Amino acid sequence: MKIGIVGGTGYTGAELLRLLTVHPEAELVTITSRSEAGTPVAEMFPNLRGRVNLKFEEPSSDRLVHCDVVFYATPNGTAMKSVPALLESGVKVIDLAADFRLVDPDLWQQWYGMEHACPETLLEAVYGLPELHREKIRTARLVANPGCYPTSVQLGFLPLVRAELIDLDHLIADVKSGASGAGRTAKVATLLAEAGESFSAYGASGHRHLPEIRQGLSQVSGREVGLTFVPHLVPMSRGIHATLYGQLTKEPGDLQVLFEETYADEPFVDVMPAGAHPDTRSTRGANVCRIAVHRPQDGDTVVVLAVIDNLVKGAAGQAVQNMNLMFGLEETTGLDGIGLLP
Amino acid sequence: MKIGIVGGTGYTGAELLRLLTVHPEAELVTITSRSEAGTPVAEMFPNLRGRVNLKFEEPSSDRLVHCDVVFYATPNGTAMKSVPALLESGVKVIDLAADFRLVDPDLWQQWYGMEHACPETLLEAVYGLPELHREKIRTARLVANPGCYPTSVQLGFLPLVRAELIDLDHLIADVKSGASGAGRTAKVATLLAEAGESFSAYGASGHRHLPEIRQGLSQVSGREVGLTFVPHLVPMSRGIHATLYGQLTKEPGDLQVLFEETYADEPFVDVMPAGAHPDTRSTRGANVCRIAVHRPQDGDTVVVLAVIDNLVKGAAGQAVQNMNLMFGLEETTGLDGIGLLP
Amino acid sequence: MKIGIVGGTGYTGAELLRLLTVHPEAELVTITSRSEAGTPVAEMFPNLRGRVNLKFEEPSSDRLVHCDVVFYATPNGTAMKSVPALLESGVKVIDLAADFRLVDPDLWQQWYGMEHACPETLLEAVYGLPELHREKIRTARLVANPGCYPTSVQLGFLPLVRAELIDLDHLIADVKSGASGAGRTAKVATLLAEAGESFSAYGASGHRHLPEIRQGLSQVSGREVGLTFVPHLVPMSRGIHATLYGQLTKEPGDLQVLFEETYADEPFVDVMPAGAHPDTRSTRGANVCRIAVHRPQDGDTVVVLAVIDNLVKGAAGQAVQNMNLMFGLEETTGLDGIGLLP
Amino acid sequence: MKIGIVGGTGYTGAELLRLLTVHPEAELVTITSRSEAGTPVAEMFPNLRGRVNLKFEEPSSDRLVHCDVVFYATPNGTAMKSVPALLESGVKVIDLAADFRLVDPDLWQQWYGMEHACPETLLEAVYGLPELHREKIRTARLVANPGCYPTSVQLGFLPLVRAELIDLDHLIADVKSGASGAGRTAKVATLLAEAGESFSAYGASGHRHLPEIRQGLSQVSGREVGLTFVPHLVPMSRGIHATLYGQLTKEPGDLQVLFEETYADEPFVDVMPAGAHPDTRSTRGANVCRIAVHRPQDGDTVVVLAVIDNLVKGAAGQAVQNMNLMFGLEETTGLDGIGLLP
Repeated sequence: MKIGIVGGTGYTGAELLRLLTVHPEAELVTITSRSEAGTPVAEMFPNLRGRVNLKFEEPSSDRLVHCDVVFYATPNGTAMKSVPALLESGVKVIDLAADFRLVDPDLWQQWYGMEHACPETLLEAVYGLPELHREKIRTARLVANPGCYPTSVQLGFLPLVRAELIDLDHLIADVKSGASGAGRTAKVATLLAEAGESFSAYGASGHRHLPEIRQGLSQVSGREVGLTFVPHLVPMSRGIHATLYGQLTKEPGDLQVLFEETYADEPFVDVMPAGAHPDTRSTRGANVCRIAVHRPQDGDTVVVLAVIDNLVKGAAGQAVQNMNLMFGLEETTGLDGIGLLP
Repeated sequence: MKIGIVGGTGYTGAELLRLLTVHPEAELVTITSRSEAGTPVAEMFPNLRGRVNLKFEEPSSDRLVHCDVVFYATPNGTAMKSVPALLESGVKVIDLAADFRLVDPDLWQQWYGMEHACPETLLEAVYGLPELHREKIRTARLVANPGCYPTSVQLGFLPLVRAELIDLDHLIADVKSGASGAGRTAKVATLLAEAGESFSAYGASGHRHLPEIRQGLSQVSGREVGLTFVPHLVPMSRGIHATLYGQLTKEPGDLQVLFEETYADEPFVDVMPAGAHPDTRSTRGANVCRIAVHRPQDGDTVVVLAVIDNLVKGAAGQAVQNMNLMFGLEETTGLDGIGLLP
Repeated sequence: MKIGIVGGTGYTGAELLRLLTVHPEAELVTITSRSEAGTPVAEMFPNLRGRVNLKFEEPSSDRLVHCDVVFYATPNGTAMKSVPALLESGVKVIDLAADFRLVDPDLWQQWYGMEHACPETLLEAVYGLPELHREKIRTARLVANPGCYPTSVQLGFLPLVRAELIDLDHLIADVKSGASGAGRTAKVATLLAEAGESFSAYGASGHRHLPEIRQGLSQVSGREVGLTFVPHLVPMSRGIHATLYGQLTKEPGDLQVLFEETYADEPFVDVMPAGAHPDTRSTRGANVCRIAVHRPQDGDTVVVLAVIDNLVKGAAGQAVQNMNLMFGLEETTGLDGIGLLP
Repeated sequence: MKIGIVGGTGYTGAELLRLLTVHPEAELVTITSRSEAGTPVAEMFPNLRGRVNLKFEEPSSDRLVHCDVVFYATPNGTAMKSVPALLESGVKVIDLAADFRLVDPDLWQQWYGMEHACPETLLEAVYGLPELHREKIRTARLVANPGCYPTSVQLGFLPLVRAELIDLDHLIADVKSGASGAGRTAKVATLLAEAGESFSAYGASGHRHLPEIRQGLSQVSGREVGLTFVPHLVPMSRGIHATLYGQLTKEPGDLQVLFEETYADEPFVDVMPAGAHPDTRSTRGANVCRIAVHRPQDGDTVVVLAVIDNLVKGAAGQAVQNMNLMFGLEETTGLDGIGLLP
């Protein structure tokens, strides 16, 4: 499979490179970056020295159109400008940004502050959460790879929402992310001397991943869900920890069994034993979501703990998982890396 | 004022030393440690070199009974064995452990796994959260200094609970703490190579601070409150961040004004401007709780963000604040240190 | 004393504010920032809420000329443009940047890449390392506050160089700094996700602090010294650790005694007991340099370990120490803060 | 190949498991731990969930003797008690502890504080640094896997020592390690709240890796070398950075070429381009040593920067590399993991 990456200088691009380099069916043919054209990829990411010999190239559809699949690891609002032409050339596309995640272009404009460039293409984009949309992904030309927060929150709430056990008007997602989630962009707020040895929330009044999560959970429940979503910045590089709260509306039965059965056949969702507390580091570098469910004091509040590596199951790993599905490969191909602990 | 500290080898003991050394009315006369008797304090805590010349002494009531006030910075279950005798000698006591925090000795036994040694003394202990019990603290002989988590959670929920604005059966406190909260005790779980570059919850099914918070908020509301409390470990040393969620049960008016008015006269509670997100580092080393209140999308969920330094407003600083009150000093004496940022 | 700060939006500016706010003789009258004029200082640095009510102002000599002393916390090359005029107005100046550190303007141009704007003013500038130049500082109008690395390296080598015990052609300084040393400027290299959980050297082939250290040690020895200086970036915010190596050229006697005697009367240099290893955290927030000297296996290599807080003894604290000397105050005034540990 | 691990509850044991699980020729048959016998391995190391189904077993030679190779990941002084018997049973052994690293049993006793249990076995042990002893390792029954510090220091100094370019009496190795190097043992000194946000040296007067490095470099040079070795603790989990200093004794020619040629055929040593500064994170999880050589200001001091992951090239990865050699496999088998960045 010939593969192109558009916008490879960020963390998701680098992580795609790490994963695709060891993928037995993938041949990386081009990686573009307007700002770094000519720079060897391994100069920017020395972990790839001796493994990736490409240089960044000018974004040039000439090479991209000869790929079987192109990954967009670009800022929001970039992919939507060139994806329709690529699709027409017969290239499949996986967008790791937000351009094709929201079905409603007005909602997109509201949260992302710009008009959508190809609202008609939105209609065919498939939301790339395999645990929800595996069959559609298999036949998709265009996959919208989910956001990192939305992956952890949707996988954590899914069993409860599908089983209609909790009050869908008052879901609460208290979510914490390492600093790589803010991207490899020079910003004061994520300097080590700012974000290190400190902890804070941000976007408490509204974050772009809120409508994405609501859309996904509403599709599961068949009705609008109400969600309060508060993201936080953790003084570490990688990892997301979602702590999810739901109010039981009926006697739920054995929640542990519910979660285990929901994910029994999922290769990348790991339901922990009863009473466990997953830590983000157990997922570091691995394409896995680990989940534990608690019902404190047998009360009417359910607590779900879900952890992922934001750059793997929350981005590049899930993108490769989607690629595998789109091309009829074994879903787990190239994704058997074990989390790095410690 | 002659001051003694029992059990000074942990972080709260060290922080007491740092604060009392610069307190203009305090004279430190003895600090005890069974395991480190004979060791100079500044050998264990080199930041105190040249400032504290005491050595750790055997716990000996001989010297303690000549103090005006004794701070217990001991493990849970230690203070209750010797406090009654000290009180009888006319010494005032501030316990930084949990021994005198719960009014009900049965509840104490249930959560701390041992019978209370002096249930009758519980009756006279005053819970040392000045923002709630300032007048009682002024005349107390025995103050139970609040836990670190309970300080942040109670101060954050207080305005909402007192104003009866939220559903008191379903309070949610998602709280995150730096590793110093686990104490200066050799444990695998809080090694840097275990807790660093990772994030996880713990005690999701029940933590000892749960009954303490419930007791405090129930006293405010005049009825039992229901609380889900999930603590998390943050890869940093100091700081607690409480993210609190309440469901509005009536139109709340201007929440920003409510919080500002509640704490208008409080020297150590700082209500941030509307829309702010306090970070723990702004409180590092300072006796302050910074609070922000949000109402996302003007919905019916209120989010409160409250940050403290767990060793200062969450422990030693609050203990000194209580001491000031108990001895008729200006409440802020010796507590004007500014947070260390970055 | 009326005080102005030029360029207060970086870490050294913020640290000056923290220290001067509690300084009993200091009255802060103006703080300037071209980019942030109008912004309340405490909005940028929330640890100062309730303590500093100033707003950043346009750099305007009108207010600065009415100060008794002005601190420059500006990027290199800024102070030299306006300092001569201020001095003429009778204002004393302490520059925390590098503009007046090197005596030789050609050397300055070589390392800082720009012509010096006022080479004649260089002649009267006093290098503000009180342990070397205390008497000159007392009468100085213009003090060049030392760099952070140079402070730790010079204090560590001073006893050995002055006693002529080591090979002055081959000094080695392996020095490690927290990320706040790189300043509060948006840069990819010091993002948490870049510099966190990693360690590397930088500037091994030549760093601007090299000529400054060489100049200082050459003045002590009365001859040119040869120095290899390799700085490293540590994944933490504050702190510098200098590990210094010298080859003994004669039998040195008792090195511990040498160091203790050299610094016996110094209020801000703390010689640790024989065999000790100072850690940076014991200096966090405190104006102190802790030093230990080792002679491994009684061989001919001496190892000196010197730690400081780069923002305090390495910048703002030393600047206040210099101010105290320049104005005839007790040298330790306002500098009795104790290091924050942990 | 049937594989056993003795003492698998530490970090090197866990890392062996991670690497051997994906090694195509390895079949893990037993892993022992006296203290954790009966516990599933994946319960202690959740990153291995779904990948390693073994439980820790009592150390029982019954199962070990049926292995082809046994790795010892035990504390120092354990392997030497049982290795001779295993060897006699025809099992090959790779010891990741220090028991067989020093040729001289007296030196071992001096630095490790106990008599060596099988000095005669020392004679046949091969020091497992493939870049130095590849051929001997191929035929060895017993390999002493090098220490983490010694690996980085020897690989960094090797080209200079072999070419006789530097003063061998005054080598300086200033080395920095993440906290996982201290092991997964409860200790106060490596708690996150102790070692986090701080930096310090330790063992400056003498560390057990000193004789090991001296022995290795002396073998290369054919004479005794003098080395000053100062280890430091970095507030991170993984990674070692060695900064090495040598005084040139002759005109060295092109050092960059020297290093590149020395390691041209080495699969796991990566010489960086001239002027580079390798960071530890580029080696995280990967079996590689990255090296850069500098000659500041073309003077007579050479600076070498060498980085490894202490748990991979510094321990478990190198052990697998040795296993590959001992069993005639391609040396790189199972070791193609790419460093995790960020």
